[in-house]
Amino acid sequence: MTTGVAVAATPASPSASPSSPSLETLDLDPAFALHRGGKIEIRSTIPVRDADDLSLAYTPGVAKVCTAIAETPSLVNDYTWVSNVVAVVSDGTAVLGLGDIGPAAAMPVMEGKALLFKEFGGVDAVPICLDCTDVDALVETVVRLAPSFGGINLEDISAPRCFEVEARLRELLDIPVFHDDQHGTAIVALAALKNAARLTGRSLGDLRAVVAGAGASGVAVSRILLEAGIGDIAVADSKGIIHEGRDGLNDVKRALARDTNRAGHSGSTEQALAGADVFVGLSGSTVSEQAVASMASGSIVFALSNPNPEIAPDVAARHATVVATGRSDFPNQINNVLAFPGVFRGALDVRATAITENMKVAAANALAAVVGDDLAADYVIPSPFDRRVAPAVTAAVADQARADGVARR
Amino acid sequence: MTTGVAVAATPASPSASPSSPSLETLDLDPAFALHRGGKIEIRSTIPVRDADDLSLAYTPGVAKVCTAIAETPSLVNDYTWVSNVVAVVSDGTAVLGLGDIGPAAAMPVMEGKALLFKEFGGVDAVPICLDCTDVDALVETVVRLAPSFGGINLEDISAPRCFEVEARLRELLDIPVFHDDQHGTAIVALAALKNAARLTGRSLGDLRAVVAGAGASGVAVSRILLEAGIGDIAVADSKGIIHEGRDGLNDVKRALARDTNRAGHSGSTEQALAGADVFVGLSGSTVSEQAVASMASGSIVFALSNPNPEIAPDVAARHATVVATGRSDFPNQINNVLAFPGVFRGALDVRATAITENMKVAAANALAAVVGDDLAADYVIPSPFDRRVAPAVTAAVADQARADGVARR
Repeated sequence: MTTGVAVAATPASPSASPSSPSLETLDLDPAFALHRGGKIEIRSTIPVRDADDLSLAYTPGVAKVCTAIAETPSLVNDYTWVSNVVAVVSDGTAVLGLGDIGPAAAMPVMEGKALLFKEFGGVDAVPICLDCTDVDALVETVVRLAPSFGGINLEDISAPRCFEVEARLRELLDIPVFHDDQHGTAIVALAALKNAARLTGRSLGDLRAVVAGAGASGVAVSRILLEAGIGDIAVADSKGIIHEGRDGLNDVKRALARDTNRAGHSGSTEQALAGADVFVGLSGSTVSEQAVASMASGSIVFALSNPNPEIAPDVAARHATVVATGRSDFPNQINNVLAFPGVFRGALDVRATAITENMKVAAANALAAVVGDDLAADYVIPSPFDRRVAPAVTAAVADQARADGVARR
Repeated sequence: MTTGVAVAATPASPSASPSSPSLETLDLDPAFALHRGGKIEIRSTIPVRDADDLSLAYTPGVAKVCTAIAETPSLVNDYTWVSNVVAVVSDGTAVLGLGDIGPAAAMPVMEGKALLFKEFGGVDAVPICLDCTDVDALVETVVRLAPSFGGINLEDISAPRCFEVEARLRELLDIPVFHDDQHGTAIVALAALKNAARLTGRSLGDLRAVVAGAGASGVAVSRILLEAGIGDIAVADSKGIIHEGRDGLNDVKRALARDTNRAGHSGSTEQALAGADVFVGLSGSTVSEQAVASMASGSIVFALSNPNPEIAPDVAARHATVVATGRSDFPNQINNVLAFPGVFRGALDVRATAITENMKVAAANALAAVVGDDLAADYVIPSPFDRRVAPAVTAAVADQARADGVARR
């Protein structure tokens, strides 16, 4: 990233400057070659061979469909693509580990997300990178866009703005709104932790956890673990463990201070790890081997920062019973793609008005259950390519939506 | 529409009410059956078969592409779908002949447009129906969306707001902005009129035209005819011919009054038709056989209102040499699909920063030229299914963009 920052300081011109890398050079890298021209396209699902087809798909035939929707608004879900299409909305302020790179540079990630929505969930998704970062502007813009979509997937919006954007949109809209950096990560982490607890003969209520990171994913993981009945949890940001006696906490952290840390920690993450059962890293920081060694026996370490885990998984495994990371080249990859396609597929299938906390926990339970009797220290979470995952999550989310009274069919 | 208005007065519920038509009943109509589930979808253009594919298309591979775009913004056009994707943006205020039916009911038209963009121009297009109608709100929203798109096609936004929305967006954005109701219609009408003039041995400068309708299409057709050198033109709204002595004209009509009607008409459309060479109907009103009979010999009648032309084409043909309509079941259909796919294809191919007036005239000339030596009274404009059309328009628009200095490659 050092080079990146230095080059970015040069004013960018709309056309490639002489010092820009040539496309031919970039395309020598397989990641660039694969991205050339984009990763998704729009396709017709009906034939347009002749004037008869055109007169049904467009004027004059389309007028009858428009009129019917004007009379009975819910028909938009039956006679357009709206009920199968999700907007993947970002402002480009917290993209991967790259930070605030802006809406254009965020597009490859949002397009990739759209690709995964379709491949894993059969959900049509449109990448929408917005040129605004103000909370009011983001909320207002998504509300204006909402008639075109059956759901809103927020992505890579920096904390703490992301919490308010999501909360206000959930209040204002009657379609599912889901900030994947928060809830996708939370669902998959909860599933893996349930299985890790089962493997080590404990329930969630038996576990004391330390979460490093109070950004979007750290807060959401902490919240879902509380929802699911974790024994105790302490959350740390860059200043150490969050507790009620700390000054200068924002609203989100003040609420966390109230709801967590019954043990009363007030120091560093590493201090809190002494005797703890679970470490969840979502911070981009590091944790020492010594700190992991100080955890209780049968400990569980989820070092989820990408691309560099908080502790190397082979080092953690010297002391911990279960180790998971965010990486595909180690066992137990905590990957959001295990959650979001099935979550939205299930919500769209029943035309849910929201994604409830129960639906997220149901998704985690279904995901954990896919592992079944094959449970092992290196297999607490299924592979992203396990084709049982999306249908299981879909069914659980749809059923829970009906149980929670948010399904429209 | 009488039934429609009555039913629409009943408050709509999010789920179908008992009095709503059943889907099974609606689907007996082939237009509804074809629309069931929508007309477009998102598709992946690359494989995602295993972890290696995933690591290139998504994390960690995608991070390199994001970083490169952050450093060299124009690379977004090479390594995402952005440079091939157009937003089809409407607020649902002037949909077909149905009027202000709102964003949801407008969706089938916008989705149809997206379908035609792909089928005829290979352009990916995303239907965006916005829940706002204020000019400032529309402009602001599209500006915020702009990083996600290579062009903006405005659609079915009522006049006179559409003029200001388009003008401001053209000013603010460096990608093509094109209000198809205006310019698509204008391009195709100009092409047909050029051929009709050629057929009757005249040039545009020889012709005196009357345009009925001063909405989006009436204004744009008048403007492109002026641009192309029409001899004289009188434009009528519902109150009669627009002239400088009339009170209460809005800005757009005041400008038209200044630039048109050198003959000094001040009465009705029908009065102005006496001795005129060309009638262009874009008004939804009617014109009598007697008025058409009063036109000059060799007259040209474009009765373009849909589904009911201003005069039945067989009646008009008793007096006029060339008759065109907006309908597919009569000769000489003036159909926007002859223009917009090629216009955007050409603009996107050269990454144009705008669609200039010259580019529109070039599109019309290319479209007219497709007819070539087959020119006849019942063939002044090609069929929408003539596969020569889009490539010819594309090439002409791209060439003219280069000539006008708005091409970025």
